[in-house]
Amino acid sequence: MELDAYLEDAAEHVDRLIDRYFGAPVGDLNRAAAHLLTAGGKRLRPALMMLAADAVRPNSSQDLMPAALALELTHTFTLIHDDIMDRDSFRRGVPTVNHRWNEPTAILAGDVLYSRAFSFLVGAITPETARLRAVGMLAITCDELCLGQHLDMSFSDRDDVTEGEYLEMVEKKTGALYAASAAIGAVLAGASDPQVEVLHRFGLACGVAFQIQDDLIDLLAPPGTSGKDRGSDIREGKSTLITITAREKGIDLAPYRRPLTEAECEDLIGLLSDHGVIEEVQEKARRIVRDASSLLRTLPDTEERRLLIALGEYFVSRGA
Amino acid sequence: MELDAYLEDAAEHVDRLIDRYFGAPVGDLNRAAAHLLTAGGKRLRPALMMLAADAVRPNSSQDLMPAALALELTHTFTLIHDDIMDRDSFRRGVPTVNHRWNEPTAILAGDVLYSRAFSFLVGAITPETARLRAVGMLAITCDELCLGQHLDMSFSDRDDVTEGEYLEMVEKKTGALYAASAAIGAVLAGASDPQVEVLHRFGLACGVAFQIQDDLIDLLAPPGTSGKDRGSDIREGKSTLITITAREKGIDLAPYRRPLTEAECEDLIGLLSDHGVIEEVQEKARRIVRDASSLLRTLPDTEERRLLIALGEYFVSRGA
Repeated sequence: MELDAYLEDAAEHVDRLIDRYFGAPVGDLNRAAAHLLTAGGKRLRPALMMLAADAVRPNSSQDLMPAALALELTHTFTLIHDDIMDRDSFRRGVPTVNHRWNEPTAILAGDVLYSRAFSFLVGAITPETARLRAVGMLAITCDELCLGQHLDMSFSDRDDVTEGEYLEMVEKKTGALYAASAAIGAVLAGASDPQVEVLHRFGLACGVAFQIQDDLIDLLAPPGTSGKDRGSDIREGKSTLITITAREKGIDLAPYRRPLTEAECEDLIGLLSDHGVIEEVQEKARRIVRDASSLLRTLPDTEERRLLIALGEYFVSRGA
Repeated sequence: MELDAYLEDAAEHVDRLIDRYFGAPVGDLNRAAAHLLTAGGKRLRPALMMLAADAVRPNSSQDLMPAALALELTHTFTLIHDDIMDRDSFRRGVPTVNHRWNEPTAILAGDVLYSRAFSFLVGAITPETARLRAVGMLAITCDELCLGQHLDMSFSDRDDVTEGEYLEMVEKKTGALYAASAAIGAVLAGASDPQVEVLHRFGLACGVAFQIQDDLIDLLAPPGTSGKDRGSDIREGKSTLITITAREKGIDLAPYRRPLTEAECEDLIGLLSDHGVIEEVQEKARRIVRDASSLLRTLPDTEERRLLIALGEYFVSRGA
């Protein structure tokens, strides 16, 4: 099976479950909680969880589907709360919960999804030891996600964020949940401790690379394809690996901290390309994934291991 | 042992643990998360959990202390998020997290405490089956707490809330966490299903009665003792069992929806007393506790059972 087909399959599976559990919400708060969850999404975290489980024990993911939902719920919970903090109005083509309802309802809708994530994990069809360990992992992960988001916000009034600080933030804010997805899949499938460790590290690397690729897409994606204004990170003066690398190379991005025309965007891309910034950032993301993929050699040589490696490559090659 | 001494002991125990785990927070977000938790509180939910555990199996609560913390963390998480929604500035004699820091940090601080609650439950020294069940209970409970808070907010622009609706809201918003405290204590101590059920119902009743008593205190407590302005519920037009009962008796509280002098407050209390409102509400709270206490007869006749009954009585007799 090709990765595309696997991801499509996994997303369909997850969508069906979401429809079953959240498709007919009763009451205003449940509607708000279901709103963003049912608005689509690539369901990459559940897919990674399923792949990791199947890589450890073939076909084990079928029994673990409701638990896979826990990762998507946790992801959506953080999106809902992040949208409040960032005062965002649109996501996934629909109004955010804080915009469509209000802030209090959005806080509660996030809290509800987070609670349900634990309920789904507890209900997985797998031994108690594994479930309990998965619960502990999810709890620690959410702690990290919060620290990551807080760190990200703390960067907003700084222009001296280092690459190390940026990577630490991304590991927490994005990497931790991908790491947990892979590790929880492994744990629930009955993996050995070294297998769990390897898959955790692989997931973490994938998450970090995913975020770096996201930053590249923000700048490079053709207008109208990424769902955000092109170059919004640079316009807003956000610290990303791109802006940090540019600063280290002595490029002054201050003149670009304003609304940019398409031509100015192209100029900016040309400037960054000429100095090798974009290539350097792309290569860093690819190296992170390559190093992590090499860890997977210790897993059984299966179709799923091949798909995991393909997933990592997809993360650093995908467009918008 | 008298109840006072037990509660004091339990609170000291919990405070020591809070000091150990949250007394020296590292970083801004951890400081925000620890802020309200270390500002005091009666620690009634952990105390109820410990009492329930000891009523099921003598001295079992000693091993369950970190798990007892989970209830206090969950309570504090909801307080932090509620303070954002209500735009409150002070609680427990200190600035709220949203006031001292800001809303985004308060959202994350609540999320962090909620995550840690699960971590503490997972780490309890008791069989896995019990811990997993406790995790599931806490997750469902938080779902209820959110629904309760949402319901409470939805009452704010209504003046026709019925007693049934009010009690449903209080069961979710306040009762559910007391119910979970007692039930989780029982589960972790190895209680039988009927014992868990009885303690769950007892905790629920105590929580509901606690809230009704809180509403009475808001009106009746001598000025400056309850931490809130006297009669604030009536001034703000909140639906409580007092205002609902008054309405049912044809008393118009609209003239009191404004800042009240002490003399006006006394007039209002006189008016409500003359119509039997206050006595009726007090009697309802007492009856809820009395009925629930009678359920405890099925538990072993121990010192702890006696203290549980005394705790219920304390909930409906306490002053500010």
